[in-house]
Amino acid sequence: METKLFNQKAVVFSEIVPQMERLYENQLGLNFSQRFCSCKGISPKASYSSISNNSYQSKEASKFASESYFRRINGTNGGISNLWSREIMVLDAIDDEYGGVVVDPEKLPSNPNSFAFILRSSLSHWKMEGKQGVWLKLPVERADLVPIAEGFEYHHAERGYVMMTYWIPEGPSMLPGNASHQVGVGGFVINEKNEVLVVQEKHCGPAFIDLWKIPTGFILESEEIFTGVVREVKEETGIDTEFIEVIAFRHVHNVAFEKSDLFFICMLRPLSTQIKVDDLEIQAAKWMPLVEFVEQPLIQEDCMFKKVIDICIARLGKRYCGLFSHQLVSKFDGKPSTLYYNVMETHNSNCIGE
Amino acid sequence: METKLFNQKAVVFSEIVPQMERLYENQLGLNFSQRFCSCKGISPKASYSSISNNSYQSKEASKFASESYFRRINGTNGGISNLWSREIMVLDAIDDEYGGVVVDPEKLPSNPNSFAFILRSSLSHWKMEGKQGVWLKLPVERADLVPIAEGFEYHHAERGYVMMTYWIPEGPSMLPGNASHQVGVGGFVINEKNEVLVVQEKHCGPAFIDLWKIPTGFILESEEIFTGVVREVKEETGIDTEFIEVIAFRHVHNVAFEKSDLFFICMLRPLSTQIKVDDLEIQAAKWMPLVEFVEQPLIQEDCMFKKVIDICIARLGKRYCGLFSHQLVSKFDGKPSTLYYNVMETHNSNCIGE
Repeated sequence: METKLFNQKAVVFSEIVPQMERLYENQLGLNFSQRFCSCKGISPKASYSSISNNSYQSKEASKFASESYFRRINGTNGGISNLWSREIMVLDAIDDEYGGVVVDPEKLPSNPNSFAFILRSSLSHWKMEGKQGVWLKLPVERADLVPIAEGFEYHHAERGYVMMTYWIPEGPSMLPGNASHQVGVGGFVINEKNEVLVVQEKHCGPAFIDLWKIPTGFILESEEIFTGVVREVKEETGIDTEFIEVIAFRHVHNVAFEKSDLFFICMLRPLSTQIKVDDLEIQAAKWMPLVEFVEQPLIQEDCMFKKVIDICIARLGKRYCGLFSHQLVSKFDGKPSTLYYNVMETHNSNCIGE
Repeated sequence: METKLFNQKAVVFSEIVPQMERLYENQLGLNFSQRFCSCKGISPKASYSSISNNSYQSKEASKFASESYFRRINGTNGGISNLWSREIMVLDAIDDEYGGVVVDPEKLPSNPNSFAFILRSSLSHWKMEGKQGVWLKLPVERADLVPIAEGFEYHHAERGYVMMTYWIPEGPSMLPGNASHQVGVGGFVINEKNEVLVVQEKHCGPAFIDLWKIPTGFILESEEIFTGVVREVKEETGIDTEFIEVIAFRHVHNVAFEKSDLFFICMLRPLSTQIKVDDLEIQAAKWMPLVEFVEQPLIQEDCMFKKVIDICIARLGKRYCGLFSHQLVSKFDGKPSTLYYNVMETHNSNCIGE
């Protein structure tokens, strides 16, 4: 590996290394090789960063003992950075769990030309290290670097950043995909008078302009299904509700931005009666007798609407069991989560025991 | 609206419009005002595009009759583009259903400076039109335009492009979010000898290195849950299976890239017996007696694993009903979709009637 390294970067390293060795031995009283063999996360330039987090240090120092000419100039060694900054090669990065590297977005070179230069040499370095995927998160303030990240592909983006990736090995990328689904919820709210809470939407296709439908919406980032559906019903109609069960869900593809959609139909119990319409999204809302709701031609003619409402009615008649939500933390990932499932034992205990 | 328009763009329009009127009347025999009042999707420059699709034409021509000095120079009028290209203002775009515009990614100016200039004037124009959200999809080949799209935010990205957005009105953006979830599946496969199909993964935390678990994975783009789980089991273990039911699902937040995860546990019936391990991801796979599987300390100690396996065992004992998959097309969006729900009528017909 060492030979290859020298062949590839002969000009830079043959000029700079002996001088640095002398400088370190003279000024800092350190043996150069020992000093620099233990860092895998190499800083590009003293002025960009100082490595303060241990996670940026190599956990496999010995593996890179042969690469003693890669060097880290920052932190305590910052004093010599100006002399050598042109030759410093590798972006700050941490290892991921899958043999890849994650570039530190806080420590990107401020100059686009420097970035282009250091990125190229970083890729060479990571290739020699046998790295696979490279993750480059560019904050929106650093959009100037997007066109410079040559060979990188977009992976995903959020409001404040774009994540770009580079797959080093030959063959197809094994990097995980980005989020693939949006998640919607619909609330079936029925009161003691057998009236369903229904709305007409402002923004809907002309064919559905007269349809009275259940309140629906998307869940928010990190929101639970059981809280999202209660929130949506409240926002659209002003009605407070309590989540009972997920009754069914629908899976459909190629919706917004070619992504898929999971839509969870939930049974809710109303806790208030006074409707207050959300003027932004909703044209009208009301309590509608169940029979009238079901008899709407648009529902009778559509196999999906019809099936969903049949299920809700069966649920009301205790002939159907939905899925309860149960919150738990798994040791596997240590995260709070919600498991949705039927109650076991006898089915009646589920259907009756609301 | 006209007055405002002229105030804002006085320099450009006062110079150019009278000359253009004369040119058109002379050369093309057209009345300028009539000629240009019917297009809302205005092309930036003849060399960028020719509007061939009617969807790029205004459906509300009369609304913009007063804006007769905005002009479209392309297609049949391309002959004069070179004379006036500096003054041509609005990017090719179509209206979306929510009062926004979608810039045509095929017709972006080739020169970044032109793009910056035209984008600014386009925004002014759309603002006057009362437009709300602007969608700007930049293919990876046009990454040079990313840093130039001033004031735009990232919305999402896929391998080949980044989607940027601009919210024109005051107040918070009402644009829909991007995909929020990844979707995983796990296959509980049990044979007639009461043996569970289990695997040990190559890439897992050290605490779980000895755990025998059910095969799991992410569903692919536009893949069904019921096909994704069969594929994953086949890939990891070589075993052919048939989907029976979704047994339960887990919802957890802040996993990859801060997104949420929906994980569907499915009951599958094995159709073959001979295991063939996927060397890339899987360390080992085998048929393991159910009792031995359940007794693993890591499963006994974890409330989520324990609960999921309890459910699967209850399902085997006909004491639990999962969710069938039923494929249908809704008239609402015309899309094929899958509805997952319990069978109704008596519960026994579900649990017995596989």
